[in-house]
Amino acid sequence: MNHWKLTLSYDGTLFHGWQVQPELPTVQGSLALALKYVTGESVLPQGSGRTDSGVHALAQVTSFALETSIPPANLQRALNRALPPSIRILTAELVDESFHARHSARRKTYEYRIFERRTAASPSERICSPFLAPYAWDCRWQLAIEPMQEASKYLCGTHDFTSFAASDPERGLREEESDDANGKAHGPNPVKTLLQAGWAHEDGLLVYRVTGSGFLHHMVRNIVGTLADVGRGSLAVDEIPRILAARNRTAAGPTAPACGLFLHSVEYDPV
Amino acid sequence: MNHWKLTLSYDGTLFHGWQVQPELPTVQGSLALALKYVTGESVLPQGSGRTDSGVHALAQVTSFALETSIPPANLQRALNRALPPSIRILTAELVDESFHARHSARRKTYEYRIFERRTAASPSERICSPFLAPYAWDCRWQLAIEPMQEASKYLCGTHDFTSFAASDPERGLREEESDDANGKAHGPNPVKTLLQAGWAHEDGLLVYRVTGSGFLHHMVRNIVGTLADVGRGSLAVDEIPRILAARNRTAAGPTAPACGLFLHSVEYDPV
Repeated sequence: MNHWKLTLSYDGTLFHGWQVQPELPTVQGSLALALKYVTGESVLPQGSGRTDSGVHALAQVTSFALETSIPPANLQRALNRALPPSIRILTAELVDESFHARHSARRKTYEYRIFERRTAASPSERICSPFLAPYAWDCRWQLAIEPMQEASKYLCGTHDFTSFAASDPERGLREEESDDANGKAHGPNPVKTLLQAGWAHEDGLLVYRVTGSGFLHHMVRNIVGTLADVGRGSLAVDEIPRILAARNRTAAGPTAPACGLFLHSVEYDPV
Repeated sequence: MNHWKLTLSYDGTLFHGWQVQPELPTVQGSLALALKYVTGESVLPQGSGRTDSGVHALAQVTSFALETSIPPANLQRALNRALPPSIRILTAELVDESFHARHSARRKTYEYRIFERRTAASPSERICSPFLAPYAWDCRWQLAIEPMQEASKYLCGTHDFTSFAASDPERGLREEESDDANGKAHGPNPVKTLLQAGWAHEDGLLVYRVTGSGFLHHMVRNIVGTLADVGRGSLAVDEIPRILAARNRTAAGPTAPACGLFLHSVEYDPV
């Protein structure tokens, strides 16, 4: 068997998320179809983690094994021909069989992009271009970056992020979106470590970039929704420790829209 | 009656063009629905011209009359709330009743965007980002800009553009897309004047910008497809006069994909 690691970028707008679902267009499903078309083999590529409906990826990572022998550049080209333009394979490489896109992941970075209709520089309402709308949260409030930056500092380090995890009444309190090694076997571990997080103004957008050892389901979108409450002045910066301590989803702010979220990159140990 | 002129931008990806069609999402249809929702009135807004399925607009112009009296800023805001994020009203103004988005148009500018997989600077294949794919032609050839620039010069001025017009076997040889004053009444006039046209490298794209008194159906996409043939070396620059003289669609090159085309702006006489 040949073991593969692919990085891929996708526009999540028209996909029902990463994970394969019957009758619905998903990234994993499209990739499986393209692999079948190119190699004749039926494999389900594993992602570094799931992304939800409408969430994008700049560099998702996937792994799978094939019987077929094919040079990496050829597999990449053939898959890009078979896939829709909304999914592009950026790199394809042969890896050791111990490599697993989810289990081997060490750090993951997400990026969240906000378009502000009102800014300090232009207090009258700006209009979010139709060409930007699928890739940013068109936020009606003017957001003050400094308090959001301060509030974000409280989240860095190791915490129980239960307050920022999706609570799913049917399948338990929260669900692991991603890559925690103990994930599936022992139930999701709500304790995660954020290694780096911060806001920046970039190209007229307000961008949040956050790197962590792992993330719970909806965790980045719930963090951004809560920090936006801080930015618009409806939540005090020093409420963040209380929200963390509550270990209850209702303590935190709303979930920011999916379209602003990008899986930026996934890091692995060097081989 | 209050007479209105609106400029609007739209992402054409998911619309079946400008013109209203039963059961299909169109820009004109969405706008009519939003106007009905906001004012209660049933009006069909007139565009400066039709755009095809998948063609975008940076600044389309539309006109219509309403009984309702409403301040321009309020109409703009209410329409933007009622419309999908893929259509944005950029400006709204009250105009004289003689104003008509199509009949009053004097010049129109289109922009066509090409992503080149192979360029002189990067001869190995570049990958068109999924976030760019809906807004550019992902062109497999390396294109030489100088001969395309030379070929474009032959098209400037007043010519019979029959060779670059969509030939429609059911409805006659070609159909007016747009704004020629004699259009509907006397059948399309294939003689058009291109006032300015040229290629430029912009943000990693090859961009064609063309300004004319009016355009035939598919004219810009057929011009770009033909100039791309020149750019990749399969058509000689000095074939362009022969193609114009042929007055036959089969003489020119292929139609470039819709997704690369943007209606850039429409100009009117100052009032």
